Parts: sequence; structure tokens; C-alpha cells
Amino acid sequence: MKPTCITSWTISCGADAERSYRESIFSIGNGYMGTRGFRPDERGQHAAWRSTFLAGFYEYIRTGITDLVNQPDFSAMVLRLNGEDTGCMRVVDFAQSLDMRNGLLEWQFALESSDGLKTQIKMEKFISMASRHVAALRLSVIPDNWSGSLHLETGIDASVQNLPIADNQLQGNSEFVQMWDVPEIYPIDGGALLTAKTLPSRRSVSMAYALNADESIELIEEDFSVSSVLVTTLECGMCWQVEKVVAVASYRDGDSEAIARSELECIRYESFDQLLGRSEKAWSKLWETSDVVLEGNETWQGAARYNIFQLLQAVPKDDPHASIGARGLTHGRYKGCYFWDAEIFMLPMFTMTQPKMARDLLLYRYNTLPDALESAKSFSAKGARYSWMASDTGFEQCETWDTGCCEIHITADVAFAFGEYAASTGDDHFLSRYGAEVYIQTARYWVDRFNYSAKEDRYHILFVKGPDEYCGVTSNDFYTVSMAQQNLHLAIDAVSEMKQHWPDEWEDLSSRIAFNDDEIDVWQDIANKSVLLFDEERNLWIQDETFEYMEPLDIEKEKDGDKPLYFKIAYDRLQRYQVLKQPAVLMYMALRPDDFSKDEIEAAWDYYEPKTLHDSTLSFGIHALVASRLGKISDAIRYLEKSLFLDLFDVMENTAHEGVHMASLGATWQALIFGFGGLSHNGKHFSVVNRLPEQLYTMRYRFFFKGEQYEAEIRQGTDPVVRMIV
Amino acid sequence: MKPTCITSWTISCGADAERSYRESIFSIGNGYMGTRGFRPDERGQHAAWRSTFLAGFYEYIRTGITDLVNQPDFSAMVLRLNGEDTGCMRVVDFAQSLDMRNGLLEWQFALESSDGLKTQIKMEKFISMASRHVAALRLSVIPDNWSGSLHLETGIDASVQNLPIADNQLQGNSEFVQMWDVPEIYPIDGGALLTAKTLPSRRSVSMAYALNADESIELIEEDFSVSSVLVTTLECGMCWQVEKVVAVASYRDGDSEAIARSELECIRYESFDQLLGRSEKAWSKLWETSDVVLEGNETWQGAARYNIFQLLQAVPKDDPHASIGARGLTHGRYKGCYFWDAEIFMLPMFTMTQPKMARDLLLYRYNTLPDALESAKSFSAKGARYSWMASDTGFEQCETWDTGCCEIHITADVAFAFGEYAASTGDDHFLSRYGAEVYIQTARYWVDRFNYSAKEDRYHILFVKGPDEYCGVTSNDFYTVSMAQQNLHLAIDAVSEMKQHWPDEWEDLSSRIAFNDDEIDVWQDIANKSVLLFDEERNLWIQDETFEYMEPLDIEKEKDGDKPLYFKIAYDRLQRYQVLKQPAVLMYMALRPDDFSKDEIEAAWDYYEPKTLHDSTLSFGIHALVASRLGKISDAIRYLEKSLFLDLFDVMENTAHEGVHMASLGATWQALIFGFGGLSHNGKHFSVVNRLPEQLYTMRYRFFFKGEQYEAEIRQGTDPVVRMIV
Repeated sequence: MKPTCITSWTISCGADAERSYRESIFSIGNGYMGTRGFRPDERGQHAAWRSTFLAGFYEYIRTGITDLVNQPDFSAMVLRLNGEDTGCMRVVDFAQSLDMRNGLLEWQFALESSDGLKTQIKMEKFISMASRHVAALRLSVIPDNWSGSLHLETGIDASVQNLPIADNQLQGNSEFVQMWDVPEIYPIDGGALLTAKTLPSRRSVSMAYALNADESIELIEEDFSVSSVLVTTLECGMCWQVEKVVAVASYRDGDSEAIARSELECIRYESFDQLLGRSEKAWSKLWETSDVVLEGNETWQGAARYNIFQLLQAVPKDDPHASIGARGLTHGRYKGCYFWDAEIFMLPMFTMTQPKMARDLLLYRYNTLPDALESAKSFSAKGARYSWMASDTGFEQCETWDTGCCEIHITADVAFAFGEYAASTGDDHFLSRYGAEVYIQTARYWVDRFNYSAKEDRYHILFVKGPDEYCGVTSNDFYTVSMAQQNLHLAIDAVSEMKQHWPDEWEDLSSRIAFNDDEIDVWQDIANKSVLLFDEERNLWIQDETFEYMEPLDIEKEKDGDKPLYFKIAYDRLQRYQVLKQPAVLMYMALRPDDFSKDEIEAAWDYYEPKTLHDSTLSFGIHALVASRLGKISDAIRYLEKSLFLDLFDVMENTAHEGVHMASLGATWQALIFGFGGLSHNGKHFSVVNRLPEQLYTMRYRFFFKGEQYEAEIRQGTDPVVRMIV
Repeated sequence: MKPTCITSWTISCGADAERSYRESIFSIGNGYMGTRGFRPDERGQHAAWRSTFLAGFYEYIRTGITDLVNQPDFSAMVLRLNGEDTGCMRVVDFAQSLDMRNGLLEWQFALESSDGLKTQIKMEKFISMASRHVAALRLSVIPDNWSGSLHLETGIDASVQNLPIADNQLQGNSEFVQMWDVPEIYPIDGGALLTAKTLPSRRSVSMAYALNADESIELIEEDFSVSSVLVTTLECGMCWQVEKVVAVASYRDGDSEAIARSELECIRYESFDQLLGRSEKAWSKLWETSDVVLEGNETWQGAARYNIFQLLQAVPKDDPHASIGARGLTHGRYKGCYFWDAEIFMLPMFTMTQPKMARDLLLYRYNTLPDALESAKSFSAKGARYSWMASDTGFEQCETWDTGCCEIHITADVAFAFGEYAASTGDDHFLSRYGAEVYIQTARYWVDRFNYSAKEDRYHILFVKGPDEYCGVTSNDFYTVSMAQQNLHLAIDAVSEMKQHWPDEWEDLSSRIAFNDDEIDVWQDIANKSVLLFDEERNLWIQDETFEYMEPLDIEKEKDGDKPLYFKIAYDRLQRYQVLKQPAVLMYMALRPDDFSKDEIEAAWDYYEPKTLHDSTLSFGIHALVASRLGKISDAIRYLEKSLFLDLFDVMENTAHEGVHMASLGATWQALIFGFGGLSHNGKHFSVVNRLPEQLYTMRYRFFFKGEQYEAEIRQGTDPVVRMIV
């Protein structure tokens, strides 16, 4: 267990926590930008790990393949006390903490110089939730037992590189890519403005900063950076402070330079505390609808908030051209790409508590529909094919064949998410403006992806990889076929809904996409006759055509704690054992519990759960959800704790080097609210039941349904109370 | 059809043949080095296409992945007549020709300058078959209607780059890689020596050259090249000549610089004609045993020789650490890697006509056995796993999952080739020194690659791609299972053979590889109980578990001539049609005809052949072979002609941009000798039957069997005559 201290609203660590782990879990952001929690004055780690990212800001690293761009660093500082670099001094009483009420990240420590001088240091930093372009830092220094000089250099550093990470999880990253051309630098009042452009496509970022200090400041321009140098004399026991405000804009906003300049202008003379106050207000508004109150266990409470906090930080606001990557803006893993993680794991929290944000996330998919149409064409298929890994465009970024070409359920996942959003929000225009087109185009893809067997009059999906990525490349994967059937039904229903309720819009749409009524019969035929494997004797839905040919594996003997087994057994071998990386049949049952009898879900649990390795962070939360619905309390608690503390306690031993696992955050929320919190809906009505575990005495959460907001309160031994917020 | 003229010993083209096509088909070499047939003075094409390669000389282009290195160019020249560059002058009466008796490549043409001056030019070039390090060029110039100045620059040019080609056949190559560091250059008598080292691993090549000319020569050194400049005055109607001799050595030979220097020393004062004479003698020796005489059709005769010529050029001599890549030394396609092409398609010609060369090709596999053991380990398997694509080491170079991880038959192909070589040569020590170890280690791999199904008491191969690469990733591929069974039998037999005939060697080997007698039972069990799919009703061996679920495709409608269909239909879609890229069941039947009844082979032909797209150049020759054995004469002739003229007539429309197809050359030989030539053997005896088609009145070829050499002569209407050569 990691040495992380969790209170109901704060997360903190001491010096015994590994540096890159701290960098990951203390990542802060506002959905527009995000930065890892590296100590501004610390040295010795490569610039690619002390990363800052902007949502949707990608650049090509080879033909057709992008990487999330590591942005110039606006927080690095060189601090010298009495001539000695603090980055190299002995640190004592170190504490790093995060306040989830306002996103304030803080380092407090004392420094001991080689000749015994002791200094108290506090560094504070936040990225404003009130204004997307704004970040601020504050440095406080108190010399304990000396007086003398302080030398500070801080500005904007574009001497950063990208370290693209191979899709293969075992292949180390080794080749740096220089993304930035030599930037342009302009002095401005109290600081400077730096505009850098990427080499391949000339995509610009501009960062303007100013220091609020009494001392005079000298500007140093180097090839790739600009910094302000400030020299002063400290007096023993007296607190000296300096504040830095930063404004960031990119080509995605328009004229990045003008925007950064004017944004800085707006905040130039505001204090750190004023800016923080405004950010806190924005955070309060988010917490007002998204908070989950868990009374009875403060660690759970803080961890639950941490899961929600990271999701709220990661989601782009009012930006329908970006989504949330597998690691948000906390790490460049998977080249920063968007997966089904966003639609299936994270989206429900947004749909239920921040529906506008959910809508924008889906609009990213709607806006990349032209790419999905192009992609399908490149696979000689009609309709729209969403990519397993997508970046600023929707084109496939996955470079391994078995996932990039075969893990096709993503297309149905996107359609499913549209359907879920529409059903629970009651967003009336959504179907006619976006949903119907997505359902129909994705349904068309499935028509070409199923193989019709005339002999059997059945439809098969061949060469498919399901959510259990250890399934090999197989046929008739239960999750994929089921989701594709859902997708086809969504399209069928959309056509009739459109005809009935939106006749004008339907006329436009159906002619624009050359819709033909015969298509419905084909969709219906495939939905009816596609192959799902069921064993009557065992009342068991079978994962796919090859699962039952696999050899058993003694998981207890082979697996070492929660560390993924692919570190020990090659992927090629793992996929031929009868083990699951993560839930597949149970995954579908988690999404559509009402389609199955309790006996069927229990049979699936009894068969698959013991065979599941949980080598994916997507696994724990879903198991917690299913277990809690099944009333398997101890299993549910065990899995919830894995998911709840996944990053905070570095359960998978990869948070340090891969960043925060966004899907797991979302799955945790689903386990809490749809599992223990007992919330469900059938598209028309919601219901809340009491499944509160004994660890808690009260649970309280808010949610939206059909445009109204509700608060549910669940207490031990009584019926849940749900009231509408007016 | 390409404008190529074929006589019994020569190949020639005029100016209407496309430049890169000519570059490919006029590739010359000696197995140590090879160079494409580019006109030395021609400009305007990238240096990566005017390529020169050395066998086994690879270098890393990224972690673990190598490319065949494009070597410095020793033939480029700048020639100016009366101040005008010949590379830019109008060419008339152009002819490029290749003499297969001695490997002499020749360009003859006239040049017309902008002011009407006409000049006859002849350029000649060969790579010596007598001395691996040696190449020579000769330039002859006759001014037709003018006298005036000639300016010649020629030397060694290391300003070449690599253009690695993606495994994906549709992805264009676009990124150049700089392999060479700034070379070292030393003047030597009449020329210079250049030593270049690759940047990543400091692998060296040295090229020394000298001009034999009366004129005085000035040396020009540039960063990446050295050249001799020679200026003279031409007299109208008089022939002026210059000769250039070149010696090449690399780090693979030892001290490359010393070797290149001393090799040049040996030939420095020999004339072009003397050197060519010696090369011709070496060629004669090769032709003595490898020639196939086809009387009755001169085009067939010349083309057959071309197929053999290219194989003889490509095979490394006395170098058991290199093999023959898919394009030999004629192109960098597939990063210059070795495939099953060498063992299954090319090897038989060498085994039967140049057994020492065959042995060395197999020793490459034996020498990379340690890598194959490491590879198996990286797949969590025991034993030895040969890589689908290998280079100087045996590690996997294929970067696409479905082939690199799933096209596993290569391991059995290697073992099979060892078995075939041993059976037909009777090379006594081969089993005890090399074969047994390879059979046992590869058998051990299969033990881990089959999945045992306890329920059925059967062994399955899951997630496998067979030779029909449009099969998707499937199970129980007939070819792979059959070859794996052969592999297991080879291992079982080897153990008993070793125990009986080589007890001391067996004691050493079995303890060195920790052999346990129980292994034999496992091998036998798998060989007996692995799944081959057979349909009694149709008397048909079924390719794999998914083939019969595929949808039919109207091949005639879709396919445009012989151009591969993957240019039109995406691979992802093609693999779900019931079509074959190349033979699979028939491929195995071609290798082991005696294991099947004629009815079975005919049923397979009738079922699979109409579904075969021949999108691989490996397809035609094998179909010709099977058809000829089945007595389907017109099919056999049709397929033979595709294979025989595959590169000469650019049947697949990719010879220009991919080089000469080595496997097809070998398949052509097999179709000629094992098919029409009627040669077969059962490991103990050979037999020759008359299957001569009416297009020929005589066929004559030599072959080795059990250490003795034979000549077979087959004439229309009589029994074949076979005599031993003494």
C-alpha cells in the first residue's frame, strides 16, 4: 500500500512516496489543460515525464499516427538560496497535498543546505476551473536560521520533447521526438509571452506569464525558453512570496498569441488568492451536482471524491471536438488516445450528474463521424466504423492488428452511449440532430461486418476480439454480437421515431445519407439471426467460439498480487489459457442487467469471475457493480476497494509510469451509484434501492433524470429517500 | 506483357520498358553482393532505389527491427560530353541486356546532344562469380559526328539512404533513414578506398576502386563520397574506353578495410575481359549442374534459365550466417528479410543441384537456433520458434500481429527442409550434427503451441494463420497442423536414429538439451490426436475452422487481371470472403503428394483452385506443379507461364517497385523438375516419369541424389533416360 493519506477532501503524501507516482496522482487540470504533479524546482527527470498537455492537441509522429503533445512547461523554476540550487538540497518534512475543493496542489517542505542553513518552502499551484486558460503558482520562502540571497528563475520552457509509447505494453519507450520548432518570444509587462509551433503541422501554443513581485526582474531568452530572473535578500524568519500567473492558448482556440495575451491581461493584477477563490467557486458548482457523500468511512469518502475529482478535471468543457483519453491529461500513455473507456466507463457519471458535459463528449463522436465513414471505407465496409484508438481526428491510431482491426465493439459502444444519454436525459433534439445519423451509419457498418452463412441462415462475426483481450482473435464474441444487436435496434427504432416525430428532419437526413427502407429488414434479420452461444445445461452464456478450447491456468499460483500477468507470461500464451483479462459476458450484463435473469448472471459470475485475472484496470469497478447487484457483498466490497484506490494505492503498479486510469474512475462511480447506491432506470423511470454496505451509514448523491435533478439519500435499514431539487 | 526479349541465354529490353522494372529484372550479384540494374549515369531517381546490398548486412532502424542496408554505390558516374551531362541527353536506340552465361549486364545506346552531336555509348558491368569481393565496369564511347572533350567522374558514393518499407503492402514508404556516418576516404593508386560505418552499430563496409585509364586522374573528396575525375579529348569515330575495378568487403568478413585493399591489389592490373573470363568460368561450373535444357521453346528456355540464374546469383556461397531474402539482393522490400520462401520454395533447387549451397542455407537456421530458443521463451514457450521474418539474427522482424505472431508454420517449414535435405542428399553427419537438435527443439515448441482439450482428448492449434494469408486468424489450419505433425515425427525418428547410429553424439546432445524420453510420448500423442478437418462426403480436407463460414466472392467480376485484389478490397474484408490468397491445403499436398490419394488431391483442386486469387507470387508455381502431377496439362501450362515469366513480364505489376520474387523462381524450378520433369523421391529411391508437355520436345536436367549426380533426359513419347554422371 502506498503511503498516501486520504481525508474527506484532501489527498497527501510524504517523501516516502515514489516521485513519478506522486507526479501521476497529483495531476491537476481543468479539462482544457492538465499537468502532472511534479515539484517545480526538482531536477533530474526527463522533461517528457514532467508533462503538461492540452486536450485535443495532437501532432503526427509518423504517417497517420499522432501523439498527444507534451506542451511547454510553465511551472519549472530554478531556485537558489545563498547560491545553492534547491533542487539539489536535502529535503526534510516533505508533504505534497491536493485540496479537492479547489484543485490546489501544494508542496511544503524544509530545505537543508550543505552548510546547515534551513529554509521553509511552500509551493502552490492550481489550474483554474473558472477560466480555462489560466494557471497560477505561488512560492513562499522562510529562512529559518539565516539571512541572505534568493535567486529565482521561472518562465516558459519549450525545451520539452515527446516520448511516444508503443502500443505494446511491454515495449519500453526509448525514442524521443522533437515536436517544437524554435519558439518566438516577446517580453511583456512582468513576464513574457512564448509562442511555439509544432514542426510537422505548425500547430501553435502560446503561453504568457507574469510575476507579481516587488523586486526588479530581468528577462533571459534562450533558444527554447524564456525566464524571468529575480534576485532578492531574505531576512531570517520572514516570509517572502512571489506569485506567477499564466495564460495558455492554442491554435485550437483561434489566434493563440492574441488570446494568451488578452487572457493574461485580464488576470495580470489579480492575486493568487483571488484567482483561487474564483476557481473554488467553479469547483463548488461542479461538486454541487457531482459529489457523492459517504458517511461512515472517511478514506472511502476521500477516495470516492478523488475518483470524481479526476474525472471532473479531465472532461473538456464546452469543447465538442475533444474527449477524455485513457489517462486523461495525466500521461502520454496510449499516445493520449480516446477509447471506449470514455463512452462505456466514464460517460455515465457525466450523463447523470453533468449532462451538458456528457453531451459534448458524444458530440466529439458525432463530429468525427466523417472520419468514421472514411475509416469504414478503408476497411471496404459501408457506414461508420469508429476507431479503437482515436485522437483529434477519428482515424485509427492503434498500430497492432489484433486490437486495431479486431476490437470492433467500440463502434457499437459509441452508439450505445448515444442511446443511454438520450434515454436518461430526455434530451429531445438529440436523436434528430445527432443520434439517428450515428445509429444508422454504425448499423450499416455491422451489415458488412457480419458474415452470412447461407447453410445455417445465421450471421457470424469472424475474427473479432472482445473486451477480454486475452480471448485471442475469435468468432461470435458475446459482448460484440450483443452490442451490435443493440446498435441495430437503435437504428431500427430511430427510423420509426424520426418518421413519427421529426418528419422534416427525417426527410433531410434520409436523403442526405441515401437511406433505403429495405435496410431495416436487413438490420432486423441480423439482429435476429446473429449467433450468441448459450449452454442450456449450465444456463450459461459462452464468451466466444474458442473460449472453451482453452487450457486451465492456476491463477493463484501464477499471479503475483494485482500485478498484470502479462509481465510474466507472454500475451501469445496468455490468450490460449482459459482466463479473462477483464469481464466480457459480465461486462455486457453490467450494461444491460434487465436483459438477463438473476440465475443467468449468477451462472456467468460463477463461471467467469474465478477465471478473471483483472489485468486491466477496467475490471474491478465492473465486478464491484455486478457483485453488488447480485448481493455478493464481500466480493463487491473487495472489488470496490481495488477500484476506489486503484491509483491512490497504485494497485496495478503502473500509476507512476502510466498516469491516472480514467476508465477505472468512471467504473468506480458506477459501482458506487448503480451498485451500492442502487440507482437504475429503464429509460422511462428511475428507481433507487438500498444496497448500502455495513461500512457506511449514509450515502447521498444527486443525479439528473429527464431534465430534473434529484437527490437520493440512503441510510442503513430504511428505504432510500429521493427528493427532487427545485 | 513487358517489352522484354528472351533468347536461350540472354534477356534484353529497349527503352519502352519502365525504368524501375529494368532496374529490378537486370539485378546482378554473386550471393555476397547484389546491385539493381540502374544505368550508371542516369539521374533523377532516389538513391534508395539505385540500391546495392550485401548479404546478411542489416542494421537497426528502431528497437529490435533491422533493415537490409543500402550500400554505397560503386557504379554511379557523371559523364559529360562536350560539357553536356549524358544523364540528361536524349537517348536513342537504347538496349539493356543481360548475358546469363557470365552475368554481364550491358547498356548500349546513342546519345544526341542539344546541338545535334551524336555519340555511341556502351556500359558494361558485372559482379564476379569467381571472387565474391569483386565487381568491374567498362565504359566505351564513340563520337559519331564530332570531336571534343569528355569529362568522367566516378568513384564510391556513400550519400545513400535507406527507405524502409512497412510490412503493410499498401502503406507507401516515405521516411528515409540515414544509415551511414561520414566515411573515411583514402587515396590509392588509380582510385580510392572508402570505409563507411553505420550510425547505430558501427558496422563497416569498405569499397576500393581503381580506374584503368591512360589519362591522369584527379581525386575529389566530398563529405560522403570520393570520385576520380578524368578529362580527355575524343576523336570523331574513335572508340575511347575506361575500365573500373572494385573490391568490396564488410565487417562480416573481418577487417573490411584491409580486405578491400588487398582484394583490389589482386585485381588492380587485370583487364575487364580477364576478370569477366574468370567469372564466366565460375558461372559455367554452376550451370553445369543447375541448367535445365528445354528444347522446343526458346522463350521458355531463356525464362527458365533466368529463374535459375537469379537464384544462383542470390544464394550466399560458403556463408552459413545468411540466407536468401524474399527479394534476394534485388530490393529492400520486407526489410530484406528471410521467410519460409527460402526453405520451402527455393531450397529444393539447391538441394538437388547445388547441395553444398543448400546445406549452408540450412546452417543459417542452425546458427540462429539460439535466437529461436530465445524467441520461444519470449512467447512463453519451450523449444525453438523460428521467426516469420528473420534477418542477421533470428529474432522476429515482422511487425504485424496476425502474421508475426500467428503465421507459425515457418518453424515446421524449417524442420521439414532439414528433413528433405537429409533424405535426398544422404548427408550422413547432418542429422547428428544439426538436424536432430533442430527437430527436437522445434518439436518442443509445438508441444506448447497446441492446446489440449481434455473434453475431446484432442489437440487444437488456436489463433493461427496458414499459408493462405486471407484466412484471417483461425484454428486448426490444415497446413500448419500437418507440418507440425511432420515436425513431431522428424523429432521422434531422430531420437531413435541417434540412439541407434550415433550413440556418443546422442549422449552429448541429449544431456546438453536436457532431453527426457517422456517427451517422445507427448510428441506421439500430439501427432496422433491433433485436429485435421476432413469431410468424408466430399472426400475433402478442409483448410481450417472458419473457411466454410466465409462468404463467396465473384472473383471474375472483382479481379482485374493478375493484379492483387488487396489493392481494391481491404485485407480486413478479403479475409472474410471464401477466397485463398495462395494454396494452403494444395500447398501441403504439393510437398507430400504420396500422403494423399489422387482422388483427395483432385477434390482439393476442384474445391480450392477456383477460389484462389493468386495474390501471392508463391501461388502460380505450386499450382503448376500440382496440376502437372494431376495430368491437368492446360492448367499446368497456364500456371507455369505465370510463374516462369512472373518477373520478366511483370505479371503482378510489382516487380518494378518490389524487386525479383525469389520464391517464385524456386517454385518455377519445382514445377519444371518435379512437375513436367517428373522427378520425385521417397527418401530412399528417386524416380523420373515423362510428363513433358507438347510445347517441348526435349527436357534435360541434372540432379544429385544420395551423393551421386544424374542426368535425366525426357523426350516426347519415350521413357525418360536417366544416367549417372561419373
